[in-house]
Amino acid sequence: MLQIPPARIGMREDEVDTPALLVDLDAFEFNLDTMAARLAGTNVKLRAHAKTHKSPVVAHQQIARGAVGQCVQKVAEAEALAWGGVKNILISNEVVGADKLNRVAALARIATIALCADCPEHVTAIEAAARDNGVNLTVLIEIDVGMNRAGIAPGTEAAALGQLIAASPHLTFGGLQSYHGSAQHRRPLEERRIAIEGAVDATRRTVDLLRQQGIACPIVGGAGTGTFEFETASGVYNEIQAGSYCFMDVDYAKNLDASGAPVSTFKHSLFVLATVISQPRHGVAVVDAGHKAVAVDAGLPGVWQRPELTYAGASDEHGRILIAGDAPPPKVGDKLRLIPGHCDPTVDRYDWYVGIRNGRVETLWPITARGGFS
Amino acid sequence: MLQIPPARIGMREDEVDTPALLVDLDAFEFNLDTMAARLAGTNVKLRAHAKTHKSPVVAHQQIARGAVGQCVQKVAEAEALAWGGVKNILISNEVVGADKLNRVAALARIATIALCADCPEHVTAIEAAARDNGVNLTVLIEIDVGMNRAGIAPGTEAAALGQLIAASPHLTFGGLQSYHGSAQHRRPLEERRIAIEGAVDATRRTVDLLRQQGIACPIVGGAGTGTFEFETASGVYNEIQAGSYCFMDVDYAKNLDASGAPVSTFKHSLFVLATVISQPRHGVAVVDAGHKAVAVDAGLPGVWQRPELTYAGASDEHGRILIAGDAPPPKVGDKLRLIPGHCDPTVDRYDWYVGIRNGRVETLWPITARGGFS
Repeated sequence: MLQIPPARIGMREDEVDTPALLVDLDAFEFNLDTMAARLAGTNVKLRAHAKTHKSPVVAHQQIARGAVGQCVQKVAEAEALAWGGVKNILISNEVVGADKLNRVAALARIATIALCADCPEHVTAIEAAARDNGVNLTVLIEIDVGMNRAGIAPGTEAAALGQLIAASPHLTFGGLQSYHGSAQHRRPLEERRIAIEGAVDATRRTVDLLRQQGIACPIVGGAGTGTFEFETASGVYNEIQAGSYCFMDVDYAKNLDASGAPVSTFKHSLFVLATVISQPRHGVAVVDAGHKAVAVDAGLPGVWQRPELTYAGASDEHGRILIAGDAPPPKVGDKLRLIPGHCDPTVDRYDWYVGIRNGRVETLWPITARGGFS
Repeated sequence: MLQIPPARIGMREDEVDTPALLVDLDAFEFNLDTMAARLAGTNVKLRAHAKTHKSPVVAHQQIARGAVGQCVQKVAEAEALAWGGVKNILISNEVVGADKLNRVAALARIATIALCADCPEHVTAIEAAARDNGVNLTVLIEIDVGMNRAGIAPGTEAAALGQLIAASPHLTFGGLQSYHGSAQHRRPLEERRIAIEGAVDATRRTVDLLRQQGIACPIVGGAGTGTFEFETASGVYNEIQAGSYCFMDVDYAKNLDASGAPVSTFKHSLFVLATVISQPRHGVAVVDAGHKAVAVDAGLPGVWQRPELTYAGASDEHGRILIAGDAPPPKVGDKLRLIPGHCDPTVDRYDWYVGIRNGRVETLWPITARGGFS
């Protein structure tokens, strides 16, 4: 069941019911414009990652500003986007199981769909699904460039897999999926730069090897919000897959720039609006947003523009707010904006974005790809 | 959008698509029967907590075995249950804001609804909503019996609030909400016993004080899966609010009994079925269930009946499985049952329970109260 929207168009922000997922539309559009400006004049395209936003409404705004399409991490996300009119989707992940591959094949009739493989068994199964469904599927090789998650070793192993894909009658070789996820949140800029230097070297080596074997890489994709400028400048990558840049979160805001200051390229545009539901003791307030309402896997949320308040603990449906010194406590019924510690899984908990501009609800966007199923 | 169900009735468990939320129906029914048996012959009723299961289908099975009704933590959960035919619902939490209170008042026309207050402002607002909507609402006082979250101090402060409720023309005084949440997971039995001893004393003192002032407590509710036997034996509590007992999780399975062994009263009945999507290196497999699919706030999931496998790390959509020694690795496509670290927020990520018996899908139950909104 889709949940009741927490707001009506036109109401004031302080009338929005809680917990609600707010998007500051000015900051959100600033972020989209900033990313477009950073990539303007390069040979690199944005393929924004929808694992962050899970909504075709956001996808279309990114595409309107030059994004070549979208990345997703799951078939269910690809479905939500394709059913919402997105025409160019890369599943930047392995897809396993006949049911899922049949769903991918069905989507290939209404959109350009690519997916990843990191072993011959993947390729064999995707070829069988493409053949059985009478479609052609584009397959990229995921190479492990330092994240130590999935992915085949760069170089000769990857090139052999490329040969297998290229030789499969119902498959098109799509290129390389080359994402260094664990580099994204290394705080010092220099650590991120060095990690991506290694990813670029491994990727370049694999691209060159495939080229020597007569196989071109139409897509060389990777990068996230923390490192995209390095991949963009690499001369090897031609697509970057940043997702969080449109919203930002507490975790990304801790990354440092060359001067050692927090990176300020993008603005916080995503908030969880919470209500103070109890003020039981001196120095403590309780809000109605616990970890079912705001993801805590990458740290607790911040409190927006209320330096005297600290979100100090989350239970399932409650957040504990500490009030500094003798600051006046928030009252029962007061609403606070929380900055999520981690935007992607926070979005995944909601059915609706509430778009805010000039203090009013301007729009509601459904989050059609949320939920645990792949 | 409700997600596609990951299974069809009648298919084998190994055909269920992933990640999927499985309920082992034999174990689930064993847990419901066990709780009913523990309370049989006492003066204490079960008011099972739906913050765990979020589904009227589960609620009705608990009620069929003697539960007096359901607890919920949010108005959205109360709506899902009342719309699904549950007739007796306690919102065991403060409800703040005119919109939410209007929704509570609307539900009071189709079900018996009670809610909590811990300050005079709550009572004033609930009275106004009841009056404006032409209904009577039942209000309990939440007292803080050691959890240090919300709740008024037991004793005279609480009794004064009871007087205010009893004097409100559109309210009925419902009793005490007296839950010691942080006692539930203290591992040694003796630590749980001592914590609840304190909660019982504070609750008894408040009940007695109210009685001396001519106010009876129809409901004295609290307790969870970790401590319910103490509250049941207290002579003060008359309703217990256990939720997790029907499913269990890794966290609750670490509680110890009097002999120092893990408590074995209830069985694991809830699992996340996951697929191995990559086996990239020796000793490592990757599954398609990360922390968007299985909550990690109370620890990582376990792997069911595969002692050679350890779930060692979760990213958003991936889980990293370590393979012990020279054990044969799981193959790409193999499916594993994960035991959630924490059942409540794991359930909240899904739209469907897949009920399994004798290796087959027997039923699908929708999780109509999931999601971040209150």
